[in-house]
Amino acid sequence: MATTDDDRRPKYQRIADSLREAIQSGEYGPGDRLPGENELMAAHGVARMTARQALSVLKDEGVAESRKGAGVFVRSFRPLRRRGIQRLAQEQWGSGRSIWSADIENRTLVVDQVTVSEETAPERIGQVLDLADEDTVCVRRRRFVLDEKPVLLATSYLPTSVVAGSAITQEDTGPGGTYARLAELGYKPVHFREEIRSRMPTKDEAAQLSISAGTPVILICRTAFADEGRPVEINEMTLDAASYILEYDFDA
Amino acid sequence: MATTDDDRRPKYQRIADSLREAIQSGEYGPGDRLPGENELMAAHGVARMTARQALSVLKDEGVAESRKGAGVFVRSFRPLRRRGIQRLAQEQWGSGRSIWSADIENRTLVVDQVTVSEETAPERIGQVLDLADEDTVCVRRRRFVLDEKPVLLATSYLPTSVVAGSAITQEDTGPGGTYARLAELGYKPVHFREEIRSRMPTKDEAAQLSISAGTPVILICRTAFADEGRPVEINEMTLDAASYILEYDFDA
Repeated sequence: MATTDDDRRPKYQRIADSLREAIQSGEYGPGDRLPGENELMAAHGVARMTARQALSVLKDEGVAESRKGAGVFVRSFRPLRRRGIQRLAQEQWGSGRSIWSADIENRTLVVDQVTVSEETAPERIGQVLDLADEDTVCVRRRRFVLDEKPVLLATSYLPTSVVAGSAITQEDTGPGGTYARLAELGYKPVHFREEIRSRMPTKDEAAQLSISAGTPVILICRTAFADEGRPVEINEMTLDAASYILEYDFDA
Repeated sequence: MATTDDDRRPKYQRIADSLREAIQSGEYGPGDRLPGENELMAAHGVARMTARQALSVLKDEGVAESRKGAGVFVRSFRPLRRRGIQRLAQEQWGSGRSIWSADIENRTLVVDQVTVSEETAPERIGQVLDLADEDTVCVRRRRFVLDEKPVLLATSYLPTSVVAGSAITQEDTGPGGTYARLAELGYKPVHFREEIRSRMPTKDEAAQLSISAGTPVILICRTAFADEGRPVEINEMTLDAASYILEYDFDA
């Protein structure tokens, strides 16, 4: 089905396109093995290097991944659906459930690493939380794992002046989590701002999230505001982009 | 300031880390030239290949970019802020302004390519818009350019049965755009769902958006619902991730 237009493109690109179409049409499903170099050489009458380049295109796009000694496979994309607005609704954390429950549905998202410390506020954090230079923050660093695969790094910053002595400074914040405790302290979050970016991971992020080649990270910076627009928490999150769909539902 | 811990890491990685810190601290600002291979070789006492690898790390992360014959520069990140919720508020499109105005602030975002056609609905679109197999959709494909750089590809799908004969089928949809026309047709959008993913671009997307190496795309699929939950538009957007911050503001 080569057209004049197609013929001007490099062969490896045309082979990659046909494989991508076969994946998008469902001919190859998530986890299926793609034709190997030998099969592509025979089917398309090309050199090994061309076949290899075609598979590299799909790996670079994050559509396929190599498994050592087994070949190249269609990447599974069965992401978590993170509902940005419903999951923060008061009825969730107000009733003692963690705000993460909505992400999980029937899948097991667990915290496998948590550290809590008191630190001088980084400049960008101090500015948003409106802190003086010498003020400290409670820093909660967590890593979340789904099916044993790390998918999310989250670092929360809260003013020490607000949270000192509360369970927020403990590893286990108790029922309803940080937001329920903030409410008890008189700083109930009533408004949220989420800012989203995407970029390639640093080496550290890639290592911590066990990210495959060709997978970006999504950065979410969430700021929680109590009454009168007082910012009470900043949560900087780094998500494995291959593991997440973010969803925001809202009325006009 | 090498620590025992640092010493176990490869040299190129430590050099990359120190450059990254210098960028984050503001020592090198957006558009500044970073030290070249010769300077890094002299400053750190390393081989050319090590210096080159250090710069490659930053380029791969999208923090820096090469300019031919001129060196390696800190990537400018002066993104558009796309406010997902406010920009769709009725007061905006209801009063004759385009929903895109809120993105632009004082910067000039223009449509440089637009095509409108009637097509059979792709399966995924027909399913969400609840169409029969033979139903067609009005497809509006647009490319948006900021400061002559393409930043956004948007393809909207609307049921022909809803929009036939209206300005939505023209290149210029008139004051207030598609949503004002839908309101006039009795299908005023009252609810929106935005779903967000990120991945590396395909070759086509990279070409259409003139994307630099190491830059992912953000995908937004927005569905607009009229009364009684009737879906009336799907807009599939592909954004240059280096050009955008998405923002969602909402109450608890």
